[in-house]
Amino acid sequence: MASFVFHGISCAGPGGVVRPRVDITVENGRIASIEDAVPGRNPAGGYDGGGKIALPGFYNIHSHIPMTLLRGYGEGLQLKEWLFGKMIPFESLLMDEDCYWGSLLGIAEMLASGTVSFTDMYMHMPGIVKAVSESGIKANLSHGFSSRVPGQPFLESAAYEGWQAVREAEASAKGRIVADASIHAEYTTDTESTVRSIADWSRGEGLRMHVHISETRKEHEECKIRRGGMTPTAFFERCGIFDSPTTAAHCVWAEDADLDILAARGVTVAHCPSSNLKLGSGIARIARMVDLGVNVGIGTDGAASNNNLDMLEEMVLASLVQKGVTGDPTRFGPGEMLTMACRNGALSQGRTDCGELAPGNRADIVVFDLHAPHLQPVYNPLVNVVSAARASDIRLTMVDGEILYRDGKFPTIDIERVMAEAGRIKEEKLARLAASS
Amino acid sequence: MASFVFHGISCAGPGGVVRPRVDITVENGRIASIEDAVPGRNPAGGYDGGGKIALPGFYNIHSHIPMTLLRGYGEGLQLKEWLFGKMIPFESLLMDEDCYWGSLLGIAEMLASGTVSFTDMYMHMPGIVKAVSESGIKANLSHGFSSRVPGQPFLESAAYEGWQAVREAEASAKGRIVADASIHAEYTTDTESTVRSIADWSRGEGLRMHVHISETRKEHEECKIRRGGMTPTAFFERCGIFDSPTTAAHCVWAEDADLDILAARGVTVAHCPSSNLKLGSGIARIARMVDLGVNVGIGTDGAASNNNLDMLEEMVLASLVQKGVTGDPTRFGPGEMLTMACRNGALSQGRTDCGELAPGNRADIVVFDLHAPHLQPVYNPLVNVVSAARASDIRLTMVDGEILYRDGKFPTIDIERVMAEAGRIKEEKLARLAASS
Repeated sequence: MASFVFHGISCAGPGGVVRPRVDITVENGRIASIEDAVPGRNPAGGYDGGGKIALPGFYNIHSHIPMTLLRGYGEGLQLKEWLFGKMIPFESLLMDEDCYWGSLLGIAEMLASGTVSFTDMYMHMPGIVKAVSESGIKANLSHGFSSRVPGQPFLESAAYEGWQAVREAEASAKGRIVADASIHAEYTTDTESTVRSIADWSRGEGLRMHVHISETRKEHEECKIRRGGMTPTAFFERCGIFDSPTTAAHCVWAEDADLDILAARGVTVAHCPSSNLKLGSGIARIARMVDLGVNVGIGTDGAASNNNLDMLEEMVLASLVQKGVTGDPTRFGPGEMLTMACRNGALSQGRTDCGELAPGNRADIVVFDLHAPHLQPVYNPLVNVVSAARASDIRLTMVDGEILYRDGKFPTIDIERVMAEAGRIKEEKLARLAASS
Repeated sequence: MASFVFHGISCAGPGGVVRPRVDITVENGRIASIEDAVPGRNPAGGYDGGGKIALPGFYNIHSHIPMTLLRGYGEGLQLKEWLFGKMIPFESLLMDEDCYWGSLLGIAEMLASGTVSFTDMYMHMPGIVKAVSESGIKANLSHGFSSRVPGQPFLESAAYEGWQAVREAEASAKGRIVADASIHAEYTTDTESTVRSIADWSRGEGLRMHVHISETRKEHEECKIRRGGMTPTAFFERCGIFDSPTTAAHCVWAEDADLDILAARGVTVAHCPSSNLKLGSGIARIARMVDLGVNVGIGTDGAASNNNLDMLEEMVLASLVQKGVTGDPTRFGPGEMLTMACRNGALSQGRTDCGELAPGNRADIVVFDLHAPHLQPVYNPLVNVVSAARASDIRLTMVDGEILYRDGKFPTIDIERVMAEAGRIKEEKLARLAASS
C-alpha cells in the first residue's frame, strides 16, 4: 500500500497534547511517523492540513446499530410504553436484510461523525456483519442473549447462532471484526445457571463480554428483590461474567460496592449520557468511577434513544453534565474526554494498538477543519473541537489507513441507496403495524 | 419588496405542530400566507422545500456577543480564576472596534445556526450596534451597569452612555434594534439607592431590563448576607427592577419564593444550560419554573463559557438534562423546546409579532435539510431536527424577510475578513497580556 501523508496538520496526541504543524505518514494501515512539518514542503499528493487538526478516531462502545431505522419513532414516551409499545413491536418485524440497510445507514452516520469502531449488541447478525464488512469500519459485534424460552440452553439460542455468524466473518476481516459474547441484561435472563453457562463458555472461548447493567433504578431495585439482595453487578460477578473482559453499558444506578467490583475486575463502563437523560434514567457517577480507576468509555446507545450516533455530542454532553453535577469545572477537559472516547474505548475492544495517534498504532484518524465562524479564533484547537465543533466540521475519516469518509463522500457506501432503503423499510413496517393493530 | 415563496416545505407551526408540504409566502418582511402546496406547481423563483422543514428562527436571549474573541480562552479553570485571571484582564484591553469584529463573528455564527435575534449585555456599544446594523440581525442590546466607582450616579455611568448609543441607533433600525436597560447583577452593584435609581429610570423610559440572577450558589448565598437575608430576586423586586419587563439570566439557585416572584412579575428566565454546566454552576429548575408559569427562554451566554452560540445545541441540552433530572421522558419534547427557543424568547424581547410561523408575523425563518444519514428515516421531521440535527443542516436563515445566510454564504458579512480580524485581535491582546505580566 502506498503511503499517505497529512502535511502540516495539528495533531492531538496521547492525553490530548496538541503538536502544531506535523506530517503524519500512514503506511500499511498504520501510523509510520509523526514529525515536525517543514514549511512549504508538502510531499507529492500530501493532504493539506493547514487550519486542520487530526484526532484519533472515536470508539462508540455501546450501540444497537440497526435501530437507526427507529430514529425518532416513539419519541417522548415513558420507558415502558416506548419499549413495549413501540420498539419491540417494530423490531419484531425486522429481518436480516432490514438490519443490513439500517446498519449501513448507522455506519455512514458514524463515519461522517468520526467514529472508526463500535461495540454493538443486537440481533440479525448476518445483516450487521455484511454491512460492517462492506463498509470497512471496525466493530465488536454480539447478539445479546435473553431468555425468551424458559430453560433454553445457550448453545441452542439465537444468541449463540448470532455469535457463530460473526465468528465466521472474523477470519476474512483482518481484525476489523471481533465476535463478542453478550448477555442482554440481568432482567432479561432467567436462571443463574444459564448465566453461568454463558460465562463459562465465554471464558473458554477467550471472548470479550457486552452487557447492560443498572440502566434504570427500577431494573436495579427489582434485581435485588429477584436475586436475594444482589445488584446486577454483584449477580454478574458471582456468575463469573467478569472473568471475560467486559463492557457494561450505563451503570447509572450502580452502588458504591458495585463500582468497587467494576474497578477490581477491570470492567469498562460504556457511558451513554444522551440515552440516559433522554429516557429519564438518570446520570451515571462518572467522576466517582474515574476516581476509582474504572475504565470509562463513551457510547451513543441506539439511535431510537439518542437520536443520533454522534460521539462528539456525547463527549461534550458527558463533560458538561459531569462538570455541572460535581460543581467542578476543572475536570473532564478536552484531553480527558478524548482519551475516554478513543483510547479507553479501543482498550475495551481489546484493540491495544488503537485509540491514540502515535507511531506504530493503527491509522484511525479524523480530520477537523477549524476554518468556520463557530471555531474562531483558536487558542487551542483541541479545546475548540471538543467544546464548539460539530461533526460537520469533519473533513476525513480514516480507518486502518483507508479513507472511508471524505468531504461528504463515502467511498464504500452507496449513501443515496441506503437512505432510500431506510425510508422504504420505515413505510413497510408502519403499514404492517397499522394492519395488525 | 417582491414576494419570496418557500414551496412544498414542511412547516413547524405554533406549538411545534408540523404541516407537511405547504407554500410559505413572504411579503414586506412578513409571512403573507401559509397554504397547502399544489404538487408540481412551484412558483417562478420559488425555493424548493422538498425534504426540508421551516422553523421559526431562534431567539438567543442571553449573550455577550463580543466574547467570541475569547472562545476557548481560559478553558477548564475554576470560575474565580477564569473570571479574574483570564476574562477580565483580556476584556480590559478590548476597544469598540475589537467588539465590532467580535460581534460580527458571533452574528455570523448565530445566523448560520438559525438565530434571528439576540438579547445581549456587554460594553463598547458603538462597536456592537455597528455590527448588528450592518448584518441585518435583530437584537435587544444593553450595557450592563456595575458599580465600578462607588457612589457614581447611573446617569454619569458608562452603562448610561452605552444605552444612549443604542438608543440613537434604534431610530434607523426599523425595529430591529431595541435599547434595553441593564444591571449586570446584584453582586456587582453597591447601594440599594443606585439600583432603585436605575429601576426608576427604566420604568420612566419604558424600557425592558436585562440582569443576571443567582447564577452561582456563592453569589446567591453572599447576597443574603449582604442584603439582610434577601436573595438577588427579592432584592431586585424590592428595588423595583421588575417594574420593567425583565429577562433574568440563569436563576440556577433561585429558591421557591424567588420562583413565585419571577412568575408573579412576568420575569423571563434566560436558561443557559451549557454555561451553567461548564462553569460548574449547576442545573436550573426549569421544570418547576414552567409549572409555575414562568416564561422560560434559552440563551447561549458568551462563547467563552459555552463555547459556541448554537441555539439548537442549547435546546437539545436543556431538554435532555431536564428529562434526566426529573426522571420524566415525556416532558420537554420538541414542540415545547421550539416554543421556548422561539416564541418565549421573542416575547421576552417585546416582539409580539415574532417567534411563530403564522400569517401576519415577521418572516424569521430557518430552513433545515433532512437529506442526511443522521436525519433518516423521518417519522416526524421536527423530532429529527430537535433531537438529531446539527446547525450544519441549516440551509437558509431569513430575518424580517431578508435572507442573511444561505448555503454557507453571508450576503451582509465579509466572513473571511471577520475571521482574520478575530485572529489578529487574539494575537494582539495575547502579546499585550504577555508584555504586562
